[in-house]
Amino acid sequence: MIDQDFVKELAQQLRVDSIRSSAAAGSGHPTSSMSAAELMAVLLAGHLHYDFDEPHNPGNDHLIFSKGHASPLLYSMYKAAGAISDEEMLTFRKLGSRIEGHPTPLLPWVDVATGSLGFGLPVGVGVALAGKRLDQLDYRVWVLCGDSEMAEGSIWEAFDHAAHENLDNLTVMVDVNRLGQRGETMHGWDLTSYAQRAEACGWQAIEIDGHDVDEVDRAIAQATGTQSRPTVIVARTHKGKGVKAVDDKENAHGKPVDDPTEAIAELGGERHLSVKVAPPAPGAKARQFAPSTVALPQWDVGTKVSTRRAYGDALAAIGGEHPDVVALDAEVSNSTYAEIFKKAHPERFFEMFIAEQQMVAAAVGMQVRHWRPFASTFAAFLTRAYDFARMAAVSRANIRLVGSHAGVSIGQDGPSQMGLEDLASFRAVHGSTVLYPSDPNQTARLVRAMVETDGVVYMRTTRGDTPVLYGPDEEFPIGGSRVLRSSESDQVTVVAAGITLHEAVKAAEVLAGEDINVRLIDLYSLKPVDAATLAEAARATDGRFVTVEDHWPEGGIGETVLSALADCGVVLRVTKLAVEVMPTSGTPDELLGLAGIDAEHIAAAVRKLAP
Amino acid sequence: MIDQDFVKELAQQLRVDSIRSSAAAGSGHPTSSMSAAELMAVLLAGHLHYDFDEPHNPGNDHLIFSKGHASPLLYSMYKAAGAISDEEMLTFRKLGSRIEGHPTPLLPWVDVATGSLGFGLPVGVGVALAGKRLDQLDYRVWVLCGDSEMAEGSIWEAFDHAAHENLDNLTVMVDVNRLGQRGETMHGWDLTSYAQRAEACGWQAIEIDGHDVDEVDRAIAQATGTQSRPTVIVARTHKGKGVKAVDDKENAHGKPVDDPTEAIAELGGERHLSVKVAPPAPGAKARQFAPSTVALPQWDVGTKVSTRRAYGDALAAIGGEHPDVVALDAEVSNSTYAEIFKKAHPERFFEMFIAEQQMVAAAVGMQVRHWRPFASTFAAFLTRAYDFARMAAVSRANIRLVGSHAGVSIGQDGPSQMGLEDLASFRAVHGSTVLYPSDPNQTARLVRAMVETDGVVYMRTTRGDTPVLYGPDEEFPIGGSRVLRSSESDQVTVVAAGITLHEAVKAAEVLAGEDINVRLIDLYSLKPVDAATLAEAARATDGRFVTVEDHWPEGGIGETVLSALADCGVVLRVTKLAVEVMPTSGTPDELLGLAGIDAEHIAAAVRKLAP
Repeated sequence: MIDQDFVKELAQQLRVDSIRSSAAAGSGHPTSSMSAAELMAVLLAGHLHYDFDEPHNPGNDHLIFSKGHASPLLYSMYKAAGAISDEEMLTFRKLGSRIEGHPTPLLPWVDVATGSLGFGLPVGVGVALAGKRLDQLDYRVWVLCGDSEMAEGSIWEAFDHAAHENLDNLTVMVDVNRLGQRGETMHGWDLTSYAQRAEACGWQAIEIDGHDVDEVDRAIAQATGTQSRPTVIVARTHKGKGVKAVDDKENAHGKPVDDPTEAIAELGGERHLSVKVAPPAPGAKARQFAPSTVALPQWDVGTKVSTRRAYGDALAAIGGEHPDVVALDAEVSNSTYAEIFKKAHPERFFEMFIAEQQMVAAAVGMQVRHWRPFASTFAAFLTRAYDFARMAAVSRANIRLVGSHAGVSIGQDGPSQMGLEDLASFRAVHGSTVLYPSDPNQTARLVRAMVETDGVVYMRTTRGDTPVLYGPDEEFPIGGSRVLRSSESDQVTVVAAGITLHEAVKAAEVLAGEDINVRLIDLYSLKPVDAATLAEAARATDGRFVTVEDHWPEGGIGETVLSALADCGVVLRVTKLAVEVMPTSGTPDELLGLAGIDAEHIAAAVRKLAP
Repeated sequence: MIDQDFVKELAQQLRVDSIRSSAAAGSGHPTSSMSAAELMAVLLAGHLHYDFDEPHNPGNDHLIFSKGHASPLLYSMYKAAGAISDEEMLTFRKLGSRIEGHPTPLLPWVDVATGSLGFGLPVGVGVALAGKRLDQLDYRVWVLCGDSEMAEGSIWEAFDHAAHENLDNLTVMVDVNRLGQRGETMHGWDLTSYAQRAEACGWQAIEIDGHDVDEVDRAIAQATGTQSRPTVIVARTHKGKGVKAVDDKENAHGKPVDDPTEAIAELGGERHLSVKVAPPAPGAKARQFAPSTVALPQWDVGTKVSTRRAYGDALAAIGGEHPDVVALDAEVSNSTYAEIFKKAHPERFFEMFIAEQQMVAAAVGMQVRHWRPFASTFAAFLTRAYDFARMAAVSRANIRLVGSHAGVSIGQDGPSQMGLEDLASFRAVHGSTVLYPSDPNQTARLVRAMVETDGVVYMRTTRGDTPVLYGPDEEFPIGGSRVLRSSESDQVTVVAAGITLHEAVKAAEVLAGEDINVRLIDLYSLKPVDAATLAEAARATDGRFVTVEDHWPEGGIGETVLSALADCGVVLRVTKLAVEVMPTSGTPDELLGLAGIDAEHIAAAVRKLAP
């Protein structure tokens, strides 16, 4: 039982501190913080189990502010819990402070960056999934959502999944303060509209007055006492609660209150209560899977196999070596070949159905708990989760994404299924790694390297079977490249990767018969890129390059090469071959030809460029 | 009343034809087509109003296959309706055929490309919105969804919106065949799980046996007779219905049936029934708004105003000139300044709440009906709808997207709110246009040009007020650039746009005092890009360039410049200044400095590069 008088005072303190920090910053979201003060005061004082001195204690609960703009409230809680000083709290939004405008993991108690609405809850589902199915620990996941963000589809992917996975360790509080940024939300104070949808997904939903600490307390107790389904507490609140100038008022979003002194007085003045937050039960230890020594699969030069298949085979083997590797897939595991991992390690495979945002968010949630996720679907459909990859980077998350069915070479299914922008978009994720193998042995090596690589690591795989080019013992470091052909008399450098590398090999052979020597570079690592090898080629072939890619012309292999050669000291003559016209259906060979990226077009471009 | 015997035969024909076309193609999704045969047979014969000879008749209904992989069924319907021949139907998935693997608007009866699940329904909501609030016509929108795609959050954004907007002209049929690509869906045949969620959103939901033509007919009649809310028909079906080898069987997704002859015999053989589809009532005429002559707003050189504000002012004026311009915003219209358009043209403004996917899809739906949509939110949050921009391009849609709050220069809110990948990602959309103005008069000119530009047209705007550089009568054609400073003795070319242009102006002034002459190019149009002006600058400054952008280093201004100069005949010495480190909170000036993209860093880079 909570001490109601104390908690009411604590809630007022959280409000006052939210006003103080945003006033000091000259910006921020105090009113969005004030609405959830009782929800968070009750949680902090009565239900959260967290050791702020040991943020990595595996038994700790997880608290995620999906409404990241309520950061002043979160920081006020940290102050009340003694994690940060009042002084540090007041550095809110200042350069050099870790008390940022929206929470990020620069603070050790923050699991993920939030602020892009609709992201925090799906990540919470991932953490809860890890708790149930991987760690097998009793920690709880608490997520604070705003009502505005209930309009995001990703929120409903999360509701759907959490119930499907019986995540009774997950409790969501929706702070229904009725007001968005520019006016009323779609559903205003219609709590039932949210509750019914949650119930239809299989959740327990509890509608309460979010300012009544007793109701909040009883709802949380009911949530923690409920088995096999998650609970959402739908709380009717007032934005700016407690300060007449902003209480339930429009045009009070995202700015400090006009008169903080008056507002603080209205709330009963500054307080400096401290909360002894209950620690988790001692000795929590996450489950560990036993490693097994399974050799990387090997393929013989001259046989044919797709890189997507090699990905599946390799991941299954690597799952033996690394018992912390987990795999997720968006209902296409028989296409991405994640199903091979699933068969080998069923306890570490997660079917995410056709919900790419939830898939990526679950991966982020699992890495919060130090698992190493690989998440796969068609490259085209990872575009659906692009914001989540962006937010994963802001979250300093280590996740691995694998997009299959890249480019026009998938053939008959047509353009909606062709990943043609993935290299560009994943290169433009901060701190990312972008890989594009052409060969199964190379794929296997790179998948193994991905396990140890931080950040958002993307691999692009190809649908069709292609010849094995490399032996199983060859090394393919991330950031490297592979010169497949070179001689003293090279006239043009061809840079390719994936499917186009095989076309380039054919072209180079034809050209050799015409006494045109091609230096051929396999650019399997687009980011980081092997600038030294490209620069050497620039000198060797007097700046003559043909780049060829099964991708739109922007942001892929061609621009990667140009970027690496921005100051190489040689006059560049770069011909970029890429997909310039919207593809249609056809056979892979027809479409490669139509796009002008097959062996014939490569050879023609080289002939035109050769001195 | 439908002729039930005829419709049953028609349904069998649609199945047989789906088997025939996929057998001829050697690929495709016949089983996903067969489950919905009765749903579509009843619709086609009894309820659809469509003139296949006049696909642009404004009175026509709209039929969208959100489950685009059921394309064999759609093409079978077109054949039955006499729109295509049997022979053309059998060109399915062949090069040169418009009968593509997934539907695209190469066919005049297809409104939008589908095949990325979760896209078609939100577009249908957009068309229905256009019908109710813009066209004010009685056409109906019919959407066929698969049950697998109900896991996509975008579907629930659509459910939420359609009810909120009382779209009783929208009917959705969910083909609950229980089986996804690799196994059972999350909810199997639990029709109620879908129905309850829809009801909680405010829809009428009708659960039926999807193979009982009478039940289908009555459900559709009930839908069309219902006022002020949309209807979803949740239909229990069998995937592969009617052919024992595949009926409700796993591992039968996305491939032709093994023995088509046997399967066709089992279904009673080939048929060539034709359906006289009811045309719409004659004389339908879409509402037109009256134009008004409002001059473009003008700003005086020397004053300061943000480009986001100029966007809002310009769009409001242009909404007068062009009465077919409409605006949508994702609950941040007081930040993007779309609210200025809203005030001027309330009937043509659409509040999409925080649902970016639904916003972009609604824009696509509105342009199906020839409206010219501008959709705005923070640039960072457009990443949430990246797949929808991709699918808009496959749909040959003409939409305009505007992302505000670009880059670190937004300041205190921190990295989750900073659009830093938008130039890269939108450049990599096929046929896109990418604009980045630095000045309000320039912004206004470009907004006007956007109205007449086809494809996915993206504009990036800046949060902060910046000096007016250009007079109101200057021209800024798309594909152009603006040389702000040049002389015979230029030593280094600086290329910038948006916020960094203002930093570059300051740097150039400082450098001029040091006798270092800078050629300064405002690259307001990144795609198409003014390659000629860049090449001329390359010659003038001996390949010496400093590019500077408030964007990650990949895919933005720097790589655009390098790409344009891939074969310019000069040794390039390009220094790229971009955001290399994850930003934090701080003032705009502090963050520009920390990122190394302010005047001081530009000047330093130029000094280092100058001969």
